[in-house]
Amino acid sequence: MESSIGATEGQERPTLAYALLTDLYQLTMAQGYWACDKLDEEACFHMFFRETPFKGGFAVACGTSQLAEMIDGFHFSEDDLAYLGGLDAPGGGKLFDPAFLDYLRDLRLSVDVDAVPEGTMVFPMEPIVRVTGPIMQCQLLETALLNCVNFQTLIATKAARVCLAAQAPVAEFGLRRAQGAGGSLWASRASIVGGCASTSNVMAGKMFDLPVSGTHAHSWVMAFDDELTAFREYARIFPKNCVLLVDTYDVKQGIENAITVGLEMRAAGERLSGIRIDSGDLAWLARYARERLDAAGLTDCGIVLSNDLDEHTIASIRAQGAQVSSWGVGTKLACAYDQPSLGGVYKLSATRMPGDERWTGRLKVSEQSAKLTLPGVLDVRRYVWGDGKLAGDMVFDVNEPVNAEGVIIDPADILRQKRLGELSYRTLLAPLARDGASVLSAEERSATSARERTMAGLEELDESQKRLLNPHSYPVGLEEGLWHRRARMASDLRGCRGVV
Amino acid sequence: MESSIGATEGQERPTLAYALLTDLYQLTMAQGYWACDKLDEEACFHMFFRETPFKGGFAVACGTSQLAEMIDGFHFSEDDLAYLGGLDAPGGGKLFDPAFLDYLRDLRLSVDVDAVPEGTMVFPMEPIVRVTGPIMQCQLLETALLNCVNFQTLIATKAARVCLAAQAPVAEFGLRRAQGAGGSLWASRASIVGGCASTSNVMAGKMFDLPVSGTHAHSWVMAFDDELTAFREYARIFPKNCVLLVDTYDVKQGIENAITVGLEMRAAGERLSGIRIDSGDLAWLARYARERLDAAGLTDCGIVLSNDLDEHTIASIRAQGAQVSSWGVGTKLACAYDQPSLGGVYKLSATRMPGDERWTGRLKVSEQSAKLTLPGVLDVRRYVWGDGKLAGDMVFDVNEPVNAEGVIIDPADILRQKRLGELSYRTLLAPLARDGASVLSAEERSATSARERTMAGLEELDESQKRLLNPHSYPVGLEEGLWHRRARMASDLRGCRGVV
Repeated sequence: MESSIGATEGQERPTLAYALLTDLYQLTMAQGYWACDKLDEEACFHMFFRETPFKGGFAVACGTSQLAEMIDGFHFSEDDLAYLGGLDAPGGGKLFDPAFLDYLRDLRLSVDVDAVPEGTMVFPMEPIVRVTGPIMQCQLLETALLNCVNFQTLIATKAARVCLAAQAPVAEFGLRRAQGAGGSLWASRASIVGGCASTSNVMAGKMFDLPVSGTHAHSWVMAFDDELTAFREYARIFPKNCVLLVDTYDVKQGIENAITVGLEMRAAGERLSGIRIDSGDLAWLARYARERLDAAGLTDCGIVLSNDLDEHTIASIRAQGAQVSSWGVGTKLACAYDQPSLGGVYKLSATRMPGDERWTGRLKVSEQSAKLTLPGVLDVRRYVWGDGKLAGDMVFDVNEPVNAEGVIIDPADILRQKRLGELSYRTLLAPLARDGASVLSAEERSATSARERTMAGLEELDESQKRLLNPHSYPVGLEEGLWHRRARMASDLRGCRGVV
Repeated sequence: MESSIGATEGQERPTLAYALLTDLYQLTMAQGYWACDKLDEEACFHMFFRETPFKGGFAVACGTSQLAEMIDGFHFSEDDLAYLGGLDAPGGGKLFDPAFLDYLRDLRLSVDVDAVPEGTMVFPMEPIVRVTGPIMQCQLLETALLNCVNFQTLIATKAARVCLAAQAPVAEFGLRRAQGAGGSLWASRASIVGGCASTSNVMAGKMFDLPVSGTHAHSWVMAFDDELTAFREYARIFPKNCVLLVDTYDVKQGIENAITVGLEMRAAGERLSGIRIDSGDLAWLARYARERLDAAGLTDCGIVLSNDLDEHTIASIRAQGAQVSSWGVGTKLACAYDQPSLGGVYKLSATRMPGDERWTGRLKVSEQSAKLTLPGVLDVRRYVWGDGKLAGDMVFDVNEPVNAEGVIIDPADILRQKRLGELSYRTLLAPLARDGASVLSAEERSATSARERTMAGLEELDESQKRLLNPHSYPVGLEEGLWHRRARMASDLRGCRGVV
């Protein structure tokens, strides 16, 4: 029962074997650290992104539940080691030293990991995950960590945007267009974290205890000699769950056939829950269908819309006066069609020699100031106005004093500053793993609990920050001392002096 | 050792449990077919797409190796059945009938599946996969089939485009930005099928026997006190595999440090394989680096470029005269950034009652002629000119006579016709499963064999059909008789007559 990515046969989640789910260079660098005697050097890495996805005003953190699984299941099996031992170096000989593979055989993680809880609103340049521990271990986690947090944060954010636009239950049903089976499972979970009411993905429902839902397909109608017979049979078999898809042949005729069946159901003491329209001019057809249903007395029959929807088409359909009881959203959500990747990065920010108390900040410089990384061991203070709305976030070094006035400075623009000192705040990073083992509770891993955090987090944002287009940007700055330390380090590394 | 999606601990691939990897409505419809006594009705479904991805001229079929796995592993476990048995219907009561779940417990697939081999060039409106068998079984496979064939065909096609542009080895290293762990594994495999030389994804390398490759990261350089020391240490540890990343602090200084190490390696009888540039103006920096390396006598040191590349940026960099020995392509390939989903569909095309010999064609009509489905049990003839280049494809019904002149008609435009009768042809669909069990050989499941088919298939296309922008469209048409049968069926279903 070992080894799987995202699927499970038994009630218990299996032990996962993620150690090889990494870029080859992480393993060759690991051998490098081993060969350089850097095994006891400690490092601190942070995962953060530089731009909010979908040109939006916020992102919804997600993926750290899978990260906890990855950490708990991290080990190299004999089979993994045999595979690595067989790899050739391009220039001749074997790529890996057998003594290094022996080291990997006995390797057990000892890192500490802190992360913002799933469902937390996150913004550019703030650490979402912090990993501290032996530098080699930090790097061996990098690729898998980025894979799960980037992807799931992206999808949870997309789902939140779609749900903000819909203002009615949204069912995610993107499995057939999702990027692979494993990807689809975590995409379905992230959709729930972001606010969706249900998913069509049965395996995801089972694995993550998510609400599942569905109607029927065009093929059901095509499998009968005529549409009315297909509808009647469906209503007979599923009287408690009857939503009829009306656009297999002709939407108007389909609506009339659904009304016939809806009245027959009513006469039999049942209820037609709804009709679904999956093609055509959805805004016009939804209004037309509502009129026809109401005229027939089926005012309690809902209308479900689907067909390549996203937050923008949903907003447009609602603006045109369609009354929609629920929405089905597939492709555009499950693969985040308009931006299918979040560019989150994982950067070394500090190192510490064995026996040292103090950390040494590390920085990667670049031609563009916006691409500077952040030095130190960091956390985030989230400041809150008296009315409960968020005022701004401060990225600060946990080992340095924080200026008393609570001054934050935009990472790329010293002229943009804010003083938050008199407001109350909370810090964002919470323990995820200690000494290489996850410390998350079942509640902290639950998708539906994370969805509650998402809902509460959206409440704390101003409407202008939640706009789909051109949102007001949420203030995130570096603690004043951190800003200046970083500027000095950058100019030192570039070999010039005195800029700041 | 049961149950996993894409990962495996042992040498043997585990039995996969994919039955729940489906939309809920497939299972409720299955219960419907069971309740309607349609268990013995046979159906024929085809998977096809309507538009070539990336506005390109071709697609590379991929995903049927995973489909074969899904079919072989298809079963409902006791745990799956317990989960389904616990689901509530929205209107009250349980969603599934216990007697139906008993039926699922004993269900073994008996479908026949035919598919084009992986690495085959495919075009709009032609069947890539054909499934025939009991209608319920055909539908229970739909979602998972679409998931794997849509996604992997998309990525293999993207990889082929990138490799056409690169004309040098391409390493896929998109794992950190791929859509989930499971998705990344099949994406890496599909990248190899499409033509990539290697992947950074070690787990994918192990699972699918793919070439793996990698260099080192910026963090390696940052973990030392200075870049030159970091380079020297890397060269000492990996003298047979030394590619140095030169842009951690300053690219020009990085190149000089790499040259220093390259000359030291030469003096020691080793060779600096290459340098990698991962930021900045890649076209300019590659030319600059080539000059500096040549001036230092390191003419055998290659240049590797990476940083958000796709086929268009690669073509532009090459057009500016950069001499690049290999390319690293991540995000834009692994999630097919500019079109992250292929809209392939799976449509019912024929049904047959128990005991019948003949199939009855089925059609879904739509307001748009282009969205008509295809009726019948179909295959594709691929016609070839005397010089080996492809002339065009005919979609035909295997149970109907094919017109002797080999006339094909554009599915959406009767005025576009072609006569191919005098050319030689081959048919595309090949057996993938018989009576519910895969019949693919190990060679037919191999990614590297599929890559050879991709290379051969690209050779058969005209250059104009492989252009990245505005390619010449490849002729695909319906066999003349099929075209007219479909038109008659459509007008009958719409209730009008005599259009054709």
